Amino acid sequence: MTHIADSATGNPTEADLDRAERHAALFSERASHIKQSAVRDVFELSLDPSLVSLAGGNPYLQSLPLEKLGSMASDLIREEGMTALQYGSGQGTATLRAQICEVMAEEGITGVDPDNIVITTGSQAAQDVACKVFCDPGDTVLCEDPTYVGALNTFEAYQVNAEPIPTDEHGLIPSALRLRIAELRQAGARIKFLYTIPNFNNPSGITLAAERRAEIAEICIIENILILEDNPYGMLRYSGEAIRPLRADYPEHVIYMGSFSKILAPGLRIGWAVVPAHLFRRFYLAAEAVTLCPATFNQMLISKYLQEHDWRGQIQTYRELYAARCEAMLEALDEYMPKAVSYTRPEGGFFIWVTLPEGIDTYLLLSKGIESGVVFIPGAAFSPHDGPSHRLRLAFSAVPEEKIREGVKRLAPVLAAAIAENGVR
Amino acid sequence: MTHIADSATGNPTEADLDRAERHAALFSERASHIKQSAVRDVFELSLDPSLVSLAGGNPYLQSLPLEKLGSMASDLIREEGMTALQYGSGQGTATLRAQICEVMAEEGITGVDPDNIVITTGSQAAQDVACKVFCDPGDTVLCEDPTYVGALNTFEAYQVNAEPIPTDEHGLIPSALRLRIAELRQAGARIKFLYTIPNFNNPSGITLAAERRAEIAEICIIENILILEDNPYGMLRYSGEAIRPLRADYPEHVIYMGSFSKILAPGLRIGWAVVPAHLFRRFYLAAEAVTLCPATFNQMLISKYLQEHDWRGQIQTYRELYAARCEAMLEALDEYMPKAVSYTRPEGGFFIWVTLPEGIDTYLLLSKGIESGVVFIPGAAFSPHDGPSHRLRLAFSAVPEEKIREGVKRLAPVLAAAIAENGVR
Repeated sequence: MTHIADSATGNPTEADLDRAERHAALFSERASHIKQSAVRDVFELSLDPSLVSLAGGNPYLQSLPLEKLGSMASDLIREEGMTALQYGSGQGTATLRAQICEVMAEEGITGVDPDNIVITTGSQAAQDVACKVFCDPGDTVLCEDPTYVGALNTFEAYQVNAEPIPTDEHGLIPSALRLRIAELRQAGARIKFLYTIPNFNNPSGITLAAERRAEIAEICIIENILILEDNPYGMLRYSGEAIRPLRADYPEHVIYMGSFSKILAPGLRIGWAVVPAHLFRRFYLAAEAVTLCPATFNQMLISKYLQEHDWRGQIQTYRELYAARCEAMLEALDEYMPKAVSYTRPEGGFFIWVTLPEGIDTYLLLSKGIESGVVFIPGAAFSPHDGPSHRLRLAFSAVPEEKIREGVKRLAPVLAAAIAENGVR
Repeated sequence: MTHIADSATGNPTEADLDRAERHAALFSERASHIKQSAVRDVFELSLDPSLVSLAGGNPYLQSLPLEKLGSMASDLIREEGMTALQYGSGQGTATLRAQICEVMAEEGITGVDPDNIVITTGSQAAQDVACKVFCDPGDTVLCEDPTYVGALNTFEAYQVNAEPIPTDEHGLIPSALRLRIAELRQAGARIKFLYTIPNFNNPSGITLAAERRAEIAEICIIENILILEDNPYGMLRYSGEAIRPLRADYPEHVIYMGSFSKILAPGLRIGWAVVPAHLFRRFYLAAEAVTLCPATFNQMLISKYLQEHDWRGQIQTYRELYAARCEAMLEALDEYMPKAVSYTRPEGGFFIWVTLPEGIDTYLLLSKGIESGVVFIPGAAFSPHDGPSHRLRLAFSAVPEEKIREGVKRLAPVLAAAIAENGVR
C-alpha cells in the first residue's frame, strides 16, 4: 500500500479515500437519483450585479407592508409568544386552515372542510409527501411537458418515472394524455397521479383551457389516476378570464396544493395541501413524520396578516406589478427577438417560455448568455428526460422593467447567432 | 347492487366507498407503515386543564426574553425584509451556519467547516433526509431500546427495520451492540446506521457513559455502520460532568443532528445536520428537494438572537429551571411510588423513565391514569416492536413543580393497584 497524499497537505489520504468508498456503499438506491437542480446551478450567478438575471422566479416583495408586518411579528411574540414559539399541531393551526378556505374561495374552491387541509413547509413539502404516500420505486406519474423542475427533483428522489405529456398553447392535450396512458398501461406501468400546474405553468406560463380541464379530469377518473393540482400562481392572473381550478369541480379526485410563497412571502415557507377525506389520514401522518409540525410562528404571522391587512388589495398590487413586467418583457421580445424565435403570452404568473428552431441546444447558449451579461434557464431543466432542449425560460417577476428590457436586448444577439449557426449546419 | 346509504344523509354512498377503495389501491407500500404516534394520541388530552400532563416534552418558554425577541423580529422585517421574506440558500444562511459552529463548540465539537452544515426544518427533518439518503426498504438501522418515538415513525415511513439494542443505566451496552450486529449480519441484514441520543435520551433520560462512546464508535467504524447522533438536549445538563459528543472525536463517521427547539424555541422549526464532507453533497441535495430552503426569516431571527442576546445565559436559566423540576419529580417519586417501582435519575434533559414489575402493561394503565387525573406516555411507544411494555415516560419539562408533585401523587395509587393485581395473577 502506498500513500496517495499526506494528511498534512490537506489532500485526501488513502485512508480518507478508503473510508469514502466504504461509506458510499451505504447510500440508498434513491440517493443516486437526487440531482442538483439546474435552477440552483445558476442561483449563485444570479447574484452578480453586472448580470441581468432572468433566471430566478423570485416574487417581488418590495410592495409588501413591511412596517405593518414588522409590528405584527413583534406583537405576536410579545403577546402570544408562548404559543407562537412552541410546538403546535402536526396539521397546522385551526385558524390558518379556516383562513386558507377563504383564500381558496377567491378562486372558486368552496365548501372545503378545514379538517381536510394540512399545512406544509412550502408546497414543495406537500409534493414530497404526495410521493411518499403514493409512489413506490418504479411507479409512474404523469406531468406536463414542460413542468416545474422542483417537482421533477422530488419525483427522482422517490425513484418515480415522470412521464411528460405534450402541451400546446392551451395546456395539456387531452388526446395525448389518453394515448400516453394507454401506452403506459400496455407496458405495465403503475400510474399514480397526474401532476399539473394548470395556471401560468412554471416554466411555460401557459394556462390549461377551461374545456380541457373537464376532459382531463374525466380521463383521470376513469383511469383511476389521482390529480395533483399545484396552483401557486392562480391568484396572480392579470388578463383573461379566471378559470375554475380542477379541485373546485372534482373534490374527491384532486389533491390540491397552495402556497403563500407567491401571494405573500416565500421566506416563511408555508404552503398547504387539501386532501380528499378518504385519503387524508395517511397523507397527514406522513407530513407529520417529516417535520412534527409546521412552524407555529410563521402560521400565526400569516393568520394575523390575513386578519389585519387588506390581503386581497396586496394581491391586486402584485397583479398590476407582474402585468407591467410581463408586458415589458413581451414588448422587448417583440422588438429584439429574431423572427425564428417564438414565445408564450402568459395571462398571469412569472414566466415566459421561449422556443428556438429545433436543433439548437439552449444549454450550450447559457455560457454565451452570461458572457453577454444575461442569465436564463435552459429548457432541458424542465423535462424529466435529459435530452437537449431548444427552449428556455425567462422570468420577469423579480426584475424591474428597464432591466428586463436590457436583459432581452442582451439575449437577442446570442439567440440570433445560434440560429444563424444552426441554419448553416 | 343495493345502495348502502343515501348521499343526502351525509353517510357514504356506494359510489363513495367504491371510489375510496379504488383510490386506496394507489397508496405506496410505505404508506401502510406510517402510524399515528402514541405521543400525538395523548396530545389532545394534555390540553385538559383538570389533568396533570406528564406526557408532552414541550420546552418551558416562559423564561425567554419575549420583548427583545419581538423587537428583533420587527427590526428584521422592517430593515431586512427583502432578504428575510425571500427564498434563500437550500443549505441555510452562511451566518447561521457559522454561529451553529460556535454553539456546537460549547459541547466540544470544534473545527467544523460551516460548508458541511445543512440547516433543516427541525432536526426531525434531518432524520427524514438521513433515511432518504441511506435507507432502502428492508434495510436495517440500530437504535437504543428505548428510543425517540419520532425517529421510529420516520424509520417506519421508509420501511426500515429498526433494531433496538439493550441499554442499562450507562446507556447502550457495547457487548449487546456487537452481538446484535453479528446476529443481524448472519441473517443477511443491510445495516446502515446506528441512531443514538447519547445525552439524556428521550424517553429514558439516560446518558451514554464516556468510556462506552469510544467503544461504540470503534464497533461502528469496524462494521462500516454510520452513526446518527441526535443531540437536542446535550446543552441542558444540570449535574454530573459534560461528556464529549461522538461527533467531537469521530468527525468522519458521525452525522450529527442539533436543534434550536430545546435551547431556544421549537415553534421556529430550525435544526441542523453536520455531515462528513464525503457524504455531504447527496445529503444536502435531498434536503433541498424536500423544502427548497429552510425558512429564511426564522434563520435570521435566530442569528439575531445569538448575536444580540446572552444565549449562553439563557441556556443556564433553562438548566436551572429543568434541574429544579427534575428534582421535584424525583422527590415526589421517592415519596409516593411503591417500592416495586424504579426510575432513572437523569443529569439533564426533560424525561424520567419509570419501570414497573414485569407482566404489567402500562398501555392498559393510561385510561386509569386519566381517570385519576394524570397523563403519561406508555413505554411501548418507544420501541419498534409492538409488544407490551412495563415501563412509562414522565416528562417534567413543561410542568411547574407543584403540579409535578400532584401528578406523581395521582399516578402512584394507579401503579400500586396494578402491582397488587399483577402479584395476584
